[in-house]
Amino acid sequence: MSRTTVSADDGIVYEFSPDLDAAYTAASGESLTIETVDSLGGAVQAESDVIDEVPDEVNGATGPIAVEGAEPGDVLAVHVEDVRVNEDRGRVTTIPGFGFLREADDIEEPRSRITPVEGDGDGETIDFGGLSVDIDPVIGTIGVAPESESYTTLVPHDHGGNLDTTDVTTGSTVYFPVFQEGAMLAMGDSKAAMADGEMCGTGAEIGTDIDVTLELLDDPAVSLDRPLVDTGSAWKTVASAETLEDACRLAHRDLLELLGREHGFDATDAYMFASLVGGLEVSQVVDPLVTARNAIPSEYLSEPF
Amino acid sequence: MSRTTVSADDGIVYEFSPDLDAAYTAASGESLTIETVDSLGGAVQAESDVIDEVPDEVNGATGPIAVEGAEPGDVLAVHVEDVRVNEDRGRVTTIPGFGFLREADDIEEPRSRITPVEGDGDGETIDFGGLSVDIDPVIGTIGVAPESESYTTLVPHDHGGNLDTTDVTTGSTVYFPVFQEGAMLAMGDSKAAMADGEMCGTGAEIGTDIDVTLELLDDPAVSLDRPLVDTGSAWKTVASAETLEDACRLAHRDLLELLGREHGFDATDAYMFASLVGGLEVSQVVDPLVTARNAIPSEYLSEPF
Repeated sequence: MSRTTVSADDGIVYEFSPDLDAAYTAASGESLTIETVDSLGGAVQAESDVIDEVPDEVNGATGPIAVEGAEPGDVLAVHVEDVRVNEDRGRVTTIPGFGFLREADDIEEPRSRITPVEGDGDGETIDFGGLSVDIDPVIGTIGVAPESESYTTLVPHDHGGNLDTTDVTTGSTVYFPVFQEGAMLAMGDSKAAMADGEMCGTGAEIGTDIDVTLELLDDPAVSLDRPLVDTGSAWKTVASAETLEDACRLAHRDLLELLGREHGFDATDAYMFASLVGGLEVSQVVDPLVTARNAIPSEYLSEPF
Repeated sequence: MSRTTVSADDGIVYEFSPDLDAAYTAASGESLTIETVDSLGGAVQAESDVIDEVPDEVNGATGPIAVEGAEPGDVLAVHVEDVRVNEDRGRVTTIPGFGFLREADDIEEPRSRITPVEGDGDGETIDFGGLSVDIDPVIGTIGVAPESESYTTLVPHDHGGNLDTTDVTTGSTVYFPVFQEGAMLAMGDSKAAMADGEMCGTGAEIGTDIDVTLELLDDPAVSLDRPLVDTGSAWKTVASAETLEDACRLAHRDLLELLGREHGFDATDAYMFASLVGGLEVSQVVDPLVTARNAIPSEYLSEPF
């Protein structure tokens, strides 16, 4: 089946709201290539291009893509088959008042560093100050139309959004709750590489071409409150909140529910078992809400839907 | 060189204080086997043995072991060569008022689960409710005499203590700042397996025999404020604080200093580079202080001492 390409020219959103209009409508099972622009919309092409404040429009997400037949209560599976960088440079920035060490005396804000792409194909790297870093792309912002509130693409929440989660990459499947008719998927804000935490406020921000297949799971055996990722080797519940402790607690509770259902554990036994394998992980500590996840190796959890 | 064995019968501490008396004195370069008892001191041998409150004496740490010639400002390297479980069962517990979900309505406190050890040698597993978990031991409590305050073995801080960090295991080297003459190393509170986070308050608590070689680094090129772990594939700064954000910030700052020194980065460039590779990790969220770490792949950091 040939892939349709959906680009930012077809549609780009800076807010996940409940009432999005589709830029494209896909059938369940359809494979697409989604072209994304870098999170700063091309504003940083050289190190002299610095960002004085967080832009009103940032993390532009290509879409939204409606999935035919998607209804609230369904689950949307986004199979991420490949993420390729589509430009010759990434950019890392500090922005005044943003980032984990914001306003620290020894941190210069704003600063921009360009990370040129070197090599090609599987051997691609970026360069930062003479250090070579393997390209390991991350889709930073990915989500669906939320239930009732609106969230800018700077903010993560139960609909996804600015999750900045390194597991959202080639080979993973990301599952979202469907809150609105058509689901209304959008994604962007990719990085050529990003640390867990995204401490300075960015990874190496870059445009990407993302091959996905969309799969609608209607009448799922389990409903989702928040995103869930299958990396192939682990299942990871993903949650965002004001503090890391709160985000971890939400992700942990979501995992206990899945474990309990599969193994017949009550909440206490699920809690005790989940203290033995996998564990809590940090996605990002910089967006207005922070994001954490709870991983469990795949051998202990089946596809729950 | 034959190994001396130091056991809990030789010395066990429940508090890391500045003025510990040595149970054994080792030369730098000496290899030891350290026998540890389970964190609950054998109180839970069956599921009917439950723990009604956190005991005054918990996480007993074998030692302290003085290292000849160690002086404040030095660094003590603990090369962890092997960790073997030395009993036929671990135990997982909830304890009233303790754990990440403490006092939640659906969590039974206290509860104990026994995790029998099955198989032998490299194929050892534990069983939890019919699920088999590979034994992957963790030394939960390991530390040295602190600078001025005293900390019970339930608490982690800059001296180490109850770090509950999964990387403290076979094949890792753990570096500690030396605050007191002789360093005064002690360790215990091992787990047969533990998730990052140790959410219910324990892993599978078990006695272990730990093979280590102690190496004193006098006049180190870099002084340490807190523990540092070399896993062989990554360097990880480890920090404990009231909140995960604060612990992450301390661990991140420690990493930036090491990166800056090695690569000539100023703080801002170190911050930007550290946002691309490795990242923040959760050690534990349950002890009176929580513990986090910041990992950087070994290719970007040399042994700094």
